[in-house]
Order: sequence, then structure tokens, then C-alpha cells
Amino acid sequence: MANKINRRSFIKTAAIAGAGMALIPNKALADKKKPSPTETKVRIAFIGVGLRGRNHVSNISKNPDVEIVAFADISADAVAEAQKIIKADGRAKAEEFTLGPTDYLRLLKKPNIDGVLIATPWEWHARMGVDTMKAGKYAGLEVSAATTLEQCWDLVNTYEATGVPCMILENVCYGRQELAMLNMVKKGVFGEIVHARCGYLHDLRGIKFNNGVEFGPKASSEAQWRTNFSEKMNADVYPTHGLGPIAVALDINRGNRFLSISSVATKARGLHEYIVENPQGGQNHPNADIKWNLGDVVTSTIKTSRGETIIVTHDTNVPRPYSLGFKLQGTNGLIEFDGLESGGIKQEDGTIVSPDRIYIEGKTEPHEWESAAKWFKEYDHPLWAKFEAEAKNTGHGGIDFFVDKEFVDAIKEKREPELDVYDAAAWSSVTPLSEMSIEENGEPQFFPDFTRGKWMNRKPIEIN
Amino acid sequence: MANKINRRSFIKTAAIAGAGMALIPNKALADKKKPSPTETKVRIAFIGVGLRGRNHVSNISKNPDVEIVAFADISADAVAEAQKIIKADGRAKAEEFTLGPTDYLRLLKKPNIDGVLIATPWEWHARMGVDTMKAGKYAGLEVSAATTLEQCWDLVNTYEATGVPCMILENVCYGRQELAMLNMVKKGVFGEIVHARCGYLHDLRGIKFNNGVEFGPKASSEAQWRTNFSEKMNADVYPTHGLGPIAVALDINRGNRFLSISSVATKARGLHEYIVENPQGGQNHPNADIKWNLGDVVTSTIKTSRGETIIVTHDTNVPRPYSLGFKLQGTNGLIEFDGLESGGIKQEDGTIVSPDRIYIEGKTEPHEWESAAKWFKEYDHPLWAKFEAEAKNTGHGGIDFFVDKEFVDAIKEKREPELDVYDAAAWSSVTPLSEMSIEENGEPQFFPDFTRGKWMNRKPIEIN
Repeated sequence: MANKINRRSFIKTAAIAGAGMALIPNKALADKKKPSPTETKVRIAFIGVGLRGRNHVSNISKNPDVEIVAFADISADAVAEAQKIIKADGRAKAEEFTLGPTDYLRLLKKPNIDGVLIATPWEWHARMGVDTMKAGKYAGLEVSAATTLEQCWDLVNTYEATGVPCMILENVCYGRQELAMLNMVKKGVFGEIVHARCGYLHDLRGIKFNNGVEFGPKASSEAQWRTNFSEKMNADVYPTHGLGPIAVALDINRGNRFLSISSVATKARGLHEYIVENPQGGQNHPNADIKWNLGDVVTSTIKTSRGETIIVTHDTNVPRPYSLGFKLQGTNGLIEFDGLESGGIKQEDGTIVSPDRIYIEGKTEPHEWESAAKWFKEYDHPLWAKFEAEAKNTGHGGIDFFVDKEFVDAIKEKREPELDVYDAAAWSSVTPLSEMSIEENGEPQFFPDFTRGKWMNRKPIEIN
Repeated sequence: MANKINRRSFIKTAAIAGAGMALIPNKALADKKKPSPTETKVRIAFIGVGLRGRNHVSNISKNPDVEIVAFADISADAVAEAQKIIKADGRAKAEEFTLGPTDYLRLLKKPNIDGVLIATPWEWHARMGVDTMKAGKYAGLEVSAATTLEQCWDLVNTYEATGVPCMILENVCYGRQELAMLNMVKKGVFGEIVHARCGYLHDLRGIKFNNGVEFGPKASSEAQWRTNFSEKMNADVYPTHGLGPIAVALDINRGNRFLSISSVATKARGLHEYIVENPQGGQNHPNADIKWNLGDVVTSTIKTSRGETIIVTHDTNVPRPYSLGFKLQGTNGLIEFDGLESGGIKQEDGTIVSPDRIYIEGKTEPHEWESAAKWFKEYDHPLWAKFEAEAKNTGHGGIDFFVDKEFVDAIKEKREPELDVYDAAAWSSVTPLSEMSIEENGEPQFFPDFTRGKWMNRKPIEIN
């Protein structure tokens, strides 16, 4: 009941805000809502401090330039855990907002906040991002940033109306191998890029069911909400971990753009089998009757205005080792790697060998792959060389350090983040576009140009 | 001039044959054109004895069950080379047909031929196959079997009208690793198959230009005709090496069928760069002005009636090591390998490690790839165990031995070949269908059902 009341009042608030926006000239609103100046500390608040949100709390708490001022979450327990993290770092207690799913709106009214990091269920990211920008605070959105095309536009339109930046917190863009790949692209190692592959290939069956067979209200953490997308949607519901680094390497929204996408899905078998074969489940468990909508493997083919193609895979329902399935190919050669320094291939003698491989004409031996290890080292990105020690202690092998640092630095330096609202919209739009294409048997869908033509003259991202 | 006259007279002949067919009831024609009985030897003729045709001559010449009776080729030199091969094996000289491109029709009139192996430029395969079946002789067609949908139908319709079998000589279907994969599928290792990948990823720039920059009449061997397809067509012009083994594993035309395909092509850069950067070429060479039609990487996505998806890649214009890019994924796990026992990855210490990898839930260690080597051994196909010694001496690591043996055995045993006319049509139709899809920006195209409904009840291929 509390939820219902809060949701209703939220909608009312949002409607008023929307009506108000229409009356205020954009420029005036932009001036009014500019991020508040910070003297010394960047004041960060968090909406969503579940497992993922607390990763960010933990990283950002180590940053001496930051003051952590508030937490919002529907779970008071989660907030208590977050408080413990910052207390252990010698920080003062943050203000708490735990009165239901729209209590974050109260948080956003606080004047002592410069940026808000949002790590909530996917369907909440965009609306919270919009509200955050409207409140004049930098928005940092976990991935994906949106699940519908309207949400993508909401983010872009709000950014353009308010002038308040919005960053998509795509941590894989800061992976050591991924940044080395970017470095190689910029230095022309591959020649002119023609083709790329990437994806999110991760056996999530355990996560979708807390290693049992339950999800939704009976479950905890991601199984509470993420699994719902497997039941209800047939789409690439999680495209950005693979696509982000490739989009950066291909200058998407900056001289290049996603043009069209065609997507197909396989039959859905994996989750049903998992429930049936799980000791806690079985053929007679009620969840064995669920008709899962999400195909076990979803493959999308994107064409870009510069003439490259990108194959994006979503593969989370069947057993497999983790991979982001990277491949980048140009007129000089190509690289293939699993990404994020994934595991290797176990040999018969027990040794583990990396599958990462590269071929560069005239640099590697003809007709033979070479281990990519040496190349990753040679083209190590300056950012990693500089911050290796700090990064190594943080989440996901260091990438969370860099993405959180960039969010904080952008606020501190009062500039656009490296990964901006147009990236958030274009990358996230793969979810609704792939859904439409799958429903139409692979019919190509055109990407909206979220930049409204600005992509032609925007400069490539400089990650540094 | 000779060519022109011959082509005209060929068309006339073909038209008469076609008119005749309409007057004869199918059953009567089938009876009349049944393969002639063989007492002891299978009598084989060859149309096309260039480099590839002579591989077949060489293999088949080692088969004591075979009599080699005739060679047709536009090049008398090529025929002379073929004669040398069989002479060295102690065989009598074969009859020669070298009076231009349609002289093979004279060959087909000879009564002392049971089967004809056709290894000519792609655009000739189907019409020669049709003429061979009409002449009552088993047709063995090099890949692809056809380049247009009409040709695919011509093959099927002629087979159904004459009752004379037609085999697509897809040698990779007999690869040791590929047959081990099939064995694993049949034994349920992967569970229910949901997804597959394959392709033809082979840097053909040297072959397309004889390592220089010329092609067509000024060039030799494949550069005489193959390169023409790169100039004129934007399609997966060579789909069957990857797709054949996957189609066999997925029971295509036998309980399953290709339903639809969506294809995209990247920009075409590789061949132009190759010409410009070649010492024999350069920016001012006339061939530097050619606008190549074939995209450097062509990616097709096929949906099957059983709900699997197959990603097929054609990648021949840019530098890279050879690969057939196999991946087969089911509800129990997956395998990834380059195919045909391709090369490995060179490590920093100089050792070469195979990239072939497998993951099977409960059989391999959690979250970790295992080298596929052990699995290939454990599931080695009985055919390879039996004929390893004979096979190893023949082309392409042994696969040519098996495909040629199957062609001869089918004739000897008066039965359908394992890879039949419906396979030839379905696999080869990827070329015209991908061309249409690319031209329509990835619009899905529907596969014709070449079996006219028979796929629902046909039994899976037994390779043995």
C-alpha cells in the first residue's frame, strides 16, 4: 500500500515538474539548474545501495575529494550496510531515505548534493536520472540507462533542457584490455576498422534464482527484479558491457553513429531446464510452468554510418564460462579476446592458457595467431599505468575505480563526463530496438539519432 | 569467338532437352535415366581439372574400385596435367573434351560413365549438374553448388524429374574435428542445441590476385573467375564450408530447416588497399579504380524451424589467419574451434597452443574453458578411426578422401549420397538470399523449402 501511495504521488510530482518545464525557457532552466559549485569536496548521494550500489559506495568512500551525504533505498537494511562501509572509512553517517520507492525524490530536494549515483533495478534508471538532472545534480546511471526508446529520449531531452550532465557508468569501457584495444585503434594498429563483435555472455542462472528456483518477491538481490526481464522480454536486455567499449573505439555519436539493427533470438530452454533439474525445483514446481520469453541467445547486428558492422550477443541462460566476446577487425588485422582479463583454457597438463589472440599483418607471423598478452602490455593505457595500484583494490578488477573516478572528476571539474547522455541513450536503445526486431523476425530497425545531428561534428572521446 | 559459338549451341541443346523433359512423364524419365549398372568398377568422369579438379583426380585415382574415363576442361594443359596424374598411378589415358566451355556436353553423351565430378567456376556448377543428371549420371558438385535461387531449384527439379542423385562435395563435413562435433551432438553432449556459428574466414587476397594485382583473363587459376564475384556481388559468395557441418549437426532438411536469413556487409576496403599497397600495383594502377562490391565481412543470421540461430561469416578480403569459426551451443554447454585442425596461438615462449575450447556443465570445471583436444579424441568419429591412414595422404588433411569416397560409394551402392541435392540447394541458396538481404539493408529473406515438405519426415544423415 505504501508503495502505491508513493508511486501515485511520484507521478503527480513528475507531471507538475513536466508542466513547469514547458513554461520555463530552456536557457533559464539550464542556468537555474546548473550544478551547484563545490568548494573543496564533491558531495555525492546514492539512490540504490544494494550489492551493486554498495560497490560504488565502497569505491567512492576511498576518494578523499568526496563527501558522501545521502543514501536512498527501499531497504533500510541495505542502507544500514552502506552506512557501515563509510563508517569503517571514518566518515560521518549519511542522511537516509528509505520511505519507499519514490523517497529518492526527497533526497533530490536536498541542496547539499552535487551528484547522484543511481544503481537500482533497470526500469528505474531513466526516470531517476531524469529527476536527478531536473534537480540540478549530475546523474550517474548504472547500466543499462534505459529500457524503452521513450526513456532514452527522456534522458536526452532532460539533459538538453537542463544542461545538467548525465553519465552512463559503463565500467567495462575502463577495462585494462579494453582500453589497450582503444589505444591500439587510436594508434592505427588495426588500420581502418570494418567489423566488431561483443556481447554479454555470462551464465546468470544462479543469479537469476539465488542458486535455487525462486525469483521476484520470494528472492533476494538481483533475482528480485532482473529475472522478471527474462520472463517478460525477448530482447538484448543488457547490451552495454560489450557494446560500450566497441562504441567508444568506433567513435559512435562522435563522427559515427549506430544506423540500424537486426536481432534474432533462439528458443528459450535454459531457465526451464535449470528449474526442472534443480533439487529445489523439479517438474512439479510451479516455476516449471513458466514460459520464459527471453531467448537463450540473442544476436543483434548493428550497422554504422561509417560502414562497419557490429555483432552483439546476449547469452545468460545456458551454462558457459564468462566472456564479453570481443573482436575488432580492420584492414591491417584483428584481435579477439574474452574481455576483462577473463579466465583461460585449461590444458591437459593443468596449465591455463589465455585464448586472447591477435593478428597484425607484417607484425605477427603470417597465417598464425599470436597471444595478445604482449600487445595488451605494449599498448597499456596511460590511465592504467598511472592508477594501477588504486584500481586493483576495487570492484571488477579495477574498472569500477575508473568509472567512479570519472563521475566524480567530471563533477569536480564542472565538465561533461567522458561517457555522456547520448552514449547512455544510443547504447541502451539496443534493448527496445532488439525487442522490436525480434518480434518482427529480424526486421531491421533504425536507431533514432539522439544527438539530433550533432554526432557529425562531435569530437572522439578522449579517455584520460 | 569459339566460346560464343559454343555457348549459343549449348543454350540450344539445353532448350531442346528442357522441351523434351516436359513431354516425358517424370516416372518414365526417371526409369530411363537411372544410373547405368556397373559390374565391378565405378566409371568416373571429370568436368573441370584445374587445381581443385586435379585434387579430386588424384584422390579418386587411388581408389581401385574406380575407372577414370574422361576429362573435360577448357584448358588442354589442365587435361594434360590430369592425364599425368592417372598415368603415374598406372591407369590408361582418359578421353579428352577440350573444345571450349560446352564440350562437357559431348562428354555427358558417353554411355560408359556412371558419375561426373564437377569442379569448375561457381557459376557453372548448377547447369553442369543439371546436364549430368539429365544424362543419367550421378552428379558430384564442388561448392557452392549454385549461385542463384533458380539454379538451386534447377538442381532439385532435375533430380526429382530424373531420379538421378546429385551430391554436394562439401569436404569440411568430413573434417575430423567436425565429425567429432557431430558425434558429440548425436550423443547429447551439448544437450539441446540452441545456437551455432560458422563461416569462411580466409585471407584470399593472394589467391584473388595471384599474389599480384591482376585478375580475370590476365590471371591464372581461381583469380581468373573467383575475383569476379568480389567485384560484382555483395553476398556470402562461399557459405558451405562452415554451414555444411553445422547443417548436418542440426538435421537441416531432415526434421529441421533453414527458415529465414538476414545479412549485412561491411564496407569494402581490403582489396583496394591490397592493390594500392602491392609493389606491382599502386595508386595509379588501373585496378586501383575498381569499386569492389563485396563487403570485407559479410554476416548472415539464419533462423531454423526448430528455433536455433546460426551466424555465418564470410571474411576473405582482409589479413587474418584461417578459420571456419565454429561454435555450437546447447543447454549443457558449448564448443568453439577454428575447424579443420587449424593453427594455434603462438605464445611468448614460442610454443603454439590450440584455441579450441569446450565447456560442458558437470563435465568440465565450473566457469572455465577446457582444451577441446581430449574431447575431439574421445568422440573421434568411427569413419576417421577406420580410414585414418588412407585419408592422411590426401588433400586438405584428409577430408577430400572421405568426400570423394562417399561420392564413389554412393554410385557403387546405387544409393543416395549422404549430402544430397536438397543440401546442395539449401546451403547454396545462402548466396542469393544474403545478396537480397544485404541489398535490402538486412531485411530477412525466407528460404524456399526445396524439399517441398519432405524435410518434416526425412531421417537425419548417418555419416558412416
